[in-house]
Amino acid sequence: MDYVRPSIAAMKGYVPGFQPDPWQKYIKLNSNENPFPPSPKVKETLQALTYEDLRLYPDPVSLELRKKLGALYGFSENQIICGNGSDDILNIIVRTLVQPGEAIGFHEPTFPLYRILGILHGAKVISLPMSEPYNQPPMPPPDLKIFFLANPNSPVGFGFPTALVAEMAQRIKGIFVVDEAYAEFGRENALELVRQLKNVVVVRTVSKSYSLAGVRLGYAIGHENLISEMIKVKDPFNVTRLTQALVAAALDDREYFQKTISQILETREWVTKEARALGYRVIPSQANFIFPRPPQEGKGVKFYEALFDRKVLTRYYDEEGLRDGVRMTIGKREEMIAVLQVMKEILPQFSPR
Amino acid sequence: MDYVRPSIAAMKGYVPGFQPDPWQKYIKLNSNENPFPPSPKVKETLQALTYEDLRLYPDPVSLELRKKLGALYGFSENQIICGNGSDDILNIIVRTLVQPGEAIGFHEPTFPLYRILGILHGAKVISLPMSEPYNQPPMPPPDLKIFFLANPNSPVGFGFPTALVAEMAQRIKGIFVVDEAYAEFGRENALELVRQLKNVVVVRTVSKSYSLAGVRLGYAIGHENLISEMIKVKDPFNVTRLTQALVAAALDDREYFQKTISQILETREWVTKEARALGYRVIPSQANFIFPRPPQEGKGVKFYEALFDRKVLTRYYDEEGLRDGVRMTIGKREEMIAVLQVMKEILPQFSPR
Repeated sequence: MDYVRPSIAAMKGYVPGFQPDPWQKYIKLNSNENPFPPSPKVKETLQALTYEDLRLYPDPVSLELRKKLGALYGFSENQIICGNGSDDILNIIVRTLVQPGEAIGFHEPTFPLYRILGILHGAKVISLPMSEPYNQPPMPPPDLKIFFLANPNSPVGFGFPTALVAEMAQRIKGIFVVDEAYAEFGRENALELVRQLKNVVVVRTVSKSYSLAGVRLGYAIGHENLISEMIKVKDPFNVTRLTQALVAAALDDREYFQKTISQILETREWVTKEARALGYRVIPSQANFIFPRPPQEGKGVKFYEALFDRKVLTRYYDEEGLRDGVRMTIGKREEMIAVLQVMKEILPQFSPR
Repeated sequence: MDYVRPSIAAMKGYVPGFQPDPWQKYIKLNSNENPFPPSPKVKETLQALTYEDLRLYPDPVSLELRKKLGALYGFSENQIICGNGSDDILNIIVRTLVQPGEAIGFHEPTFPLYRILGILHGAKVISLPMSEPYNQPPMPPPDLKIFFLANPNSPVGFGFPTALVAEMAQRIKGIFVVDEAYAEFGRENALELVRQLKNVVVVRTVSKSYSLAGVRLGYAIGHENLISEMIKVKDPFNVTRLTQALVAAALDDREYFQKTISQILETREWVTKEARALGYRVIPSQANFIFPRPPQEGKGVKFYEALFDRKVLTRYYDEEGLRDGVRMTIGKREEMIAVLQVMKEILPQFSPR
């Protein structure tokens, strides 16, 4: 269409994971959703909601949630902004900091949204190819307005140690964003760096760790002067009244959070061990997913299809460095028993000659 | 903060209407919220929701809602996009069409978000001052990528006839956006123009007419080639599972919708007549609010304060053309009886000398 920006017409939009009809009995491991339901407190809150209040606009600054998150991590609410998922938060960061034409950067492979946000904003996009061993990533160049680091990485699942994150953050003149969508499943996080370095911002979400992907709440923790500018850029009303109430309930239930996270970690370690024993290559994951690779190289798409045919949904990425395997969310133990059985059955298709 | 874009540091963010604590007994007429609760079907749906499903991401393209809206207005779902309120839709339109540096336009006074979206995007912002009589607005210049027309206008409330909208739309080379946030309260709308003119897009919201401001759902109806590009730009998951379910329920309840809209229109006409009889100037409104002006010019802020002191919350705009009055949402009949009593009491403060 003539009216559309050439950069948008040429762009592929974000492709979400395939969402099967509920009556199709897939084991759904393609969107890193939590296999457990949200906290029972979320159910109670949902049932106790004053539906009449839905006629009123939500709190534009999610004050109650910011106080709760601040108390949880030891920050002031002025150091926290809440948005509609971490996708919204990442978008706000770009729009607050970057003049069109200025540069943003990230490693690849990484979360594909950073590139899309750069294109939408008319920014210069600098991608640094990263390959194994992942503990020696290329250092970002200094002249970036923003560098995005997904840590733990998606879609591969490894984690960078905090010391390395700090070293990278100190290299750049701009803001260093640590996208910690999966940090609750990892050993380390960058919250201490926010206290030490003025240019570090941590981004989080309740989608995976609190099992609330359908509810949409992400947040950033950073320097209060940056946060106050980000609040100016934010769409004021895009966190619904329901979302604010339900997330508050989930955050309060620490016991359920700890219990469900522990179960996912235990299953992850067990699946990793079992998959390796079968002959798959699985690098250690710090997230709620793994990236298993059959022994034969370049067979990710065939692996994806063999799993799909047996009703196991995973994610394949047709990208440099990702064509050897698939991203597979950690489901419930009983689901993963079935998946390992499938992986055993199909393995002979991928044996090196 | 050094890191922030100069255009953002210099910008005032959107200032939402004052949200009083619920225990303070204000009559809240400052955010154009619907005074009635949402449809009882919304309550039923809320109580029947499968809370376990909140762990899953929402449908990124809101297909069920788009089909429902299409059936309601006689369009295909491919001509409709749903987003997080009409604010999100307006933002998507800018990002789909405008290269940073290109121009967008609108009249002033109008909805303040158009300017903010232009600044965020690095667009050139062209504002056309408009004054009474409002039926002779300045025509938009041809070289705009987008012209935004709020119809009915906010914050004044008048409506442009469709013939005039068509004339303006045909003047510009770019896309002509008719922001119909209040159209369900008006006599005319531009849906027929979408069928006739390739460059017309209509934007709507369920916030006011369906009493769902706390739930966040807006949509655009336009040419399917434009809609498909807009879907690429949209944040995929920002319409929650709850929002999609609750809005579907509200759309189905036509009887409740008609009944509540009729009551608001009846109250609006009655309040307009009564306020005029007291001595206020009120131009005919096509929205769920009026813009009353006391007899003495330039006293809008004093009028606002006198109402505020008597627990009536309205909206004052310190802007050219708006300093004579306040924007006042139409509440329930019993609320407006109390408001008219207050307006009568305070009127002597605003009598011309």
